[in-house]
Amino acid sequence: MQLQALLDRMLAGDRRALARLMTQVENRHPETVQVLSSIHHRCGRAYVVGITGPPGAGKSTLVGGLIGALRERGLTVGVVAVDPSSPFSGGSVLGDRIRMQKHFLDEGVFIRSLSTRGTHGGLARATRHLARLLDAFGKDIVIIETVGVGQTELDVMRLADTTIVVLVPEAGDTVQTMKAGLLEIADVFVVNKADRDGANRIKTELELMLQLRPSTDWEVPVLLTQADQDKGVPELLSTLMRHRDHVRGTQTAGGERGEAGRRAEFLEILQEEVGRRLEEAVKGGSFGELLRQLKQGEIDPYQAALRAVESEEAEGALRYSAHR
Amino acid sequence: MQLQALLDRMLAGDRRALARLMTQVENRHPETVQVLSSIHHRCGRAYVVGITGPPGAGKSTLVGGLIGALRERGLTVGVVAVDPSSPFSGGSVLGDRIRMQKHFLDEGVFIRSLSTRGTHGGLARATRHLARLLDAFGKDIVIIETVGVGQTELDVMRLADTTIVVLVPEAGDTVQTMKAGLLEIADVFVVNKADRDGANRIKTELELMLQLRPSTDWEVPVLLTQADQDKGVPELLSTLMRHRDHVRGTQTAGGERGEAGRRAEFLEILQEEVGRRLEEAVKGGSFGELLRQLKQGEIDPYQAALRAVESEEAEGALRYSAHR
Repeated sequence: MQLQALLDRMLAGDRRALARLMTQVENRHPETVQVLSSIHHRCGRAYVVGITGPPGAGKSTLVGGLIGALRERGLTVGVVAVDPSSPFSGGSVLGDRIRMQKHFLDEGVFIRSLSTRGTHGGLARATRHLARLLDAFGKDIVIIETVGVGQTELDVMRLADTTIVVLVPEAGDTVQTMKAGLLEIADVFVVNKADRDGANRIKTELELMLQLRPSTDWEVPVLLTQADQDKGVPELLSTLMRHRDHVRGTQTAGGERGEAGRRAEFLEILQEEVGRRLEEAVKGGSFGELLRQLKQGEIDPYQAALRAVESEEAEGALRYSAHR
Repeated sequence: MQLQALLDRMLAGDRRALARLMTQVENRHPETVQVLSSIHHRCGRAYVVGITGPPGAGKSTLVGGLIGALRERGLTVGVVAVDPSSPFSGGSVLGDRIRMQKHFLDEGVFIRSLSTRGTHGGLARATRHLARLLDAFGKDIVIIETVGVGQTELDVMRLADTTIVVLVPEAGDTVQTMKAGLLEIADVFVVNKADRDGANRIKTELELMLQLRPSTDWEVPVLLTQADQDKGVPELLSTLMRHRDHVRGTQTAGGERGEAGRRAEFLEILQEEVGRRLEEAVKGGSFGELLRQLKQGEIDPYQAALRAVESEEAEGALRYSAHR
């Protein structure tokens, strides 16, 4: 089992093995679920921080600043940067990556860019898998950075223990913030590029909107930063640590939320694995007669799928496992 | 079969039946796939236009203007507006809906807001289902509007024959446009709120970026609009019609792309239906022993899922169909 060897090296601290394992998991290697099961007992130690906001808010620069501050405290950091693919570079835009360059040379930091190409709606899942690998690898803090404010990004942020939403003064009407669902997920708001006009206005507006919500144990703070000059980064770090203490203080260990969460996770992994096996079965030539009828237009894709679900070939697909 | 009755009334032109059918499909009614199969032969006539861009770009206003212009040409219009949920209203922010109010009273227009709540990553799928229903209902043009520029929104836009990306002068560095993957999907760029500073600058930048790409049969135009004053909307409409002619001229009827597309669609529907049946099975008490072991911590969720896949209960779940 090739992955097992990689896994052993990764757990022994081999960064290249970690990187290769991540590639395998990202490409939905048939043994992915087995690998994640093997490391499960090593997971749960890392604290997961999500950073999101509209494009151009300076999230990557802020992440760079946070990494520096966390390293000064002696904490190790893993980063999963979720970037939509770009048509030019054949991958992500490199500028932000370059800004983080100094951290690439730091053994205590592991940065991984996750391409959205080919994840077929499984972006949140792939991100969680990579975060788990970083957790098992032993990183103290795992930062997940997403570009964009769409539904997938909101799903990704559900993985985080603390979610930081980054805006800029030009973000305009705060109604847009509501619209994008950001108010719902933010544990901390950051108004970056705070030297620009309107920074205090958007801060005040956000605070007003936050006050309109039903009160909770955690009062969502709105911080001003200038990440490119490291201004406000120490305050952000201490706020982050304060929220971590808050989260840890309120978690009822193994409580109801824990059980429902595990059931939901079980179902999700089950659906993913079954979906993957069905895809392999189609590639391997299963459902040939239905696909022929579909090609000839004798049947529509919905009808074909309904017949496929209840066929013996579907049952065969469940039992099919590539690594046997 | 309750849905069949709704379907008959919908196909006879009953708008309320259409609305109720949409709700059923959105809530993943067990007969969803059957319904979509029934209407399949009526689909494929509508032209699908996608409109996306960052929050606050004025997309809804632009959609309102487009609806008016299309109606003047005697075309009927269906709209699927994909809005992330807002924590305040318990649904979408109403402002944009209010601006479209006049169209709500027009029998030739059907507007549907799709909540992202509870779609569990199935947003692109749900949107496609609703667009199909509007198609079968007989709408000439189906407009899909998404708020946000994340991965799910990019997936949604793949459903469109023509994709319009709306930006504003303040959108800032055009690198951000690349970053968000918008350059890859745009058939038409619109710089809205073009009376503001920087409109011509961003237009020029976009045109430069577009020129850097490998040339294609369709040259992506960059239009300036002020949707709130209907300025530029006639030009947008004629550009849209021009692209429609282009698309229809280049489509090789039932060509290779057609077959690969149908296979992909078959697999997607199959995975969705199997996923739904597995979920029902879990709710119905299947996999009880594995879930007990999971609860007790005797097994991790990955291991539980792997065992579940190859169990007889999984095979039973495939054969399970709620409406029998």
